[in-house]
Amino acid sequence: ADIVVLPGDGIGPEVTAAAVDVLQAVARRYSHRFTLHEHLIGGAAIDATGTPLPDATLAAARDADAVLLGAVGGPKWSDPNAAVRPEQGLLAIRKALGLYANLRPTRPHSAAIGASPIKPHLLAGVDLLVVRELTGGIYFGERTRTETSASDLCSYTVAEIERVVRRACLLARGRRGHVTSVDKANVLETSRLWRDVATRIARDEFPDITLEHQLVDSMAMHLLSKPRAFDVIVTENMFGDILTDEASMLAGSLGLLPSASLGDGSVGMYEPIHGSAPDIAGQGIANPYGTILSAALLLRYSLGLSMEAGCIEQAVDSALEDGVFSADLAAGGDARSTREVTAAVLERIE
Amino acid sequence: ADIVVLPGDGIGPEVTAAAVDVLQAVARRYSHRFTLHEHLIGGAAIDATGTPLPDATLAAARDADAVLLGAVGGPKWSDPNAAVRPEQGLLAIRKALGLYANLRPTRPHSAAIGASPIKPHLLAGVDLLVVRELTGGIYFGERTRTETSASDLCSYTVAEIERVVRRACLLARGRRGHVTSVDKANVLETSRLWRDVATRIARDEFPDITLEHQLVDSMAMHLLSKPRAFDVIVTENMFGDILTDEASMLAGSLGLLPSASLGDGSVGMYEPIHGSAPDIAGQGIANPYGTILSAALLLRYSLGLSMEAGCIEQAVDSALEDGVFSADLAAGGDARSTREVTAAVLERIE
Ligand SMILES: CC(C)[C@H](C(=O)O)[C@@H](O)C(=O)O
Ligand SMILES: CC(C)[C@H](C(=O)O)[C@@H](O)C(=O)O
Repeated sequence: ADIVVLPGDGIGPEVTAAAVDVLQAVARRYSHRFTLHEHLIGGAAIDATGTPLPDATLAAARDADAVLLGAVGGPKWSDPNAAVRPEQGLLAIRKALGLYANLRPTRPHSAAIGASPIKPHLLAGVDLLVVRELTGGIYFGERTRTETSASDLCSYTVAEIERVVRRACLLARGRRGHVTSVDKANVLETSRLWRDVATRIARDEFPDITLEHQLVDSMAMHLLSKPRAFDVIVTENMFGDILTDEASMLAGSLGLLPSASLGDGSVGMYEPIHGSAPDIAGQGIANPYGTILSAALLLRYSLGLSMEAGCIEQAVDSALEDGVFSADLAAGGDARSTREVTAAVLERIE
Repeated sequence: ADIVVLPGDGIGPEVTAAAVDVLQAVARRYSHRFTLHEHLIGGAAIDATGTPLPDATLAAARDADAVLLGAVGGPKWSDPNAAVRPEQGLLAIRKALGLYANLRPTRPHSAAIGASPIKPHLLAGVDLLVVRELTGGIYFGERTRTETSASDLCSYTVAEIERVVRRACLLARGRRGHVTSVDKANVLETSRLWRDVATRIARDEFPDITLEHQLVDSMAMHLLSKPRAFDVIVTENMFGDILTDEASMLAGSLGLLPSASLGDGSVGMYEPIHGSAPDIAGQGIANPYGTILSAALLLRYSLGLSMEAGCIEQAVDSALEDGVFSADLAAGGDARSTREVTAAVLERIE
């Protein structure tokens, strides 16, 4: 299998290196052959080529079976008014590869519950899967800017909503059969369309699934007050961005959470949901679990290697169980380096 | 002073009745004369007049010193594709009165911390004031809808951003001098304008204030992981809608939280941040604290009666301290009715 690795910026190279080590250990143990190619994206690509998504990177990603990404961005390229910005590379590759469904699972690990700001009794049994629409909405709309004003257009087509809702319902079938669609239908026209389409798809195509609707503001509360009440949550791009960062607090740290971005084509992209964390870049203390778990999702969704994916997930579970915590998780206690955390996972795989 | 009362729908009439009783008790104790007029808004107005904001309501509000509002909306009018909806009345009155700054203070009351999903040690000392832009952005943009697509336009002018940032900085002066401006400047053009304007206003007009910028997704985490780090938070309409509902969880219940909507004109509008809660309407169990505290803000901001406002706030504090909890706060325990909670506050004022 052919895997493109896009380390990106900040802690990106450190966490992707860890996940690559884990993928290679899995290859050895199960006698697979993974061919890994590194390419540039984000700020690193701007520095080397002047553009955040070089043609060579996109071409390699298109030809690959899967893409593993670290993170992009950092103070060096942070002037929001610069013509070229690292984030553009990330948005552009998601769009170019047609990766419209971003899966963000959140299952608080018992050993990491101490790091969550949420009371422990609310977290037992929480098992969420947010399906965030990733290639539409206001992040991809027409923009204007004049001396005295600015605008961003949020738009959705019926087809864009159908495919992501369908994906969410299919995923719910393999889980508890419950889908919560989040919108702001009491105010926004795109949300009213979203609600209509979600209702129709669930009714006509998924009679076995229960669909409920929540307004995004209420959902920001319910995620905290009753996180066990949800199974699959499907929502548009920006609401998904905000709600998944909020939901990450249920798991104790953003650093633990993986994501999978899927389309109808063959290539999928996998990345931790954290950012490039420039403040700790280069110190060897970044939490690699989110990227390692993203590699597990890569094996499951892009390569069909469920057993191998499970092997990584169990290794991570066991390491967390044994208290192998990176700095973001070890409140005051004994924090392990990126390398030590990775070694603990590798040990449990080999 | 002339106060227009807009009970609205669901629990709106129950909670505004409670706050009116409290205002009258304050009038008696301090020998003021408050003239109160009730008018229609929301679903109740649609039923009676066919429109969610009748001309008579708007005219009365324009002439008043202040407006006290309950909540609007409910299942009876909930078809999001209906031509006329209760929420339109609320959006329209905010816009017509020029109420661009929505102040939403959150200070977890020690007695209510048990009801919060957040760990208590994170809540001690939390004292936030969110200033939400209330008359611009995507909630007021041009909308389109066809058979196959929909759109909503988010736009902001420099002048709209300047005035709300200025208001936030002025409010920070009376507090800890710290303003956090929230945007999504790594993606949105309106956010880049927002960040530019906020930076310039703070630098040129408020050298005594420290301004920091946060991305909305990170902010959704930081609000939970380090709520003490913030003082005044200023943000655009939709981000403010989502973040304040999230922040309400710090206080234990949405039902406790008041808001003040202010413009440059003389009339202000005051409403709890909760909705119309149709599921419990008419049962006499709604939490009236949020509306009672909104009445306190009305006295402070619109009538200049700070001592009287403080009197209400102290009465509420003392009632909470003594365990006078409505159903949303009394986890399993001894829940008081709306009337009993109100009586407890009245007792502490008279
Ligand atoms: C970097 C940014 C463009 C990106 C997004 O908002 O999609 C990030 O926040 C994410 O959630 O993956
Ligand atoms: C009812 C709705 C239009 C309103 C809003 O989103 O502004 C409400 O959620 C609020 O926060 O006051």
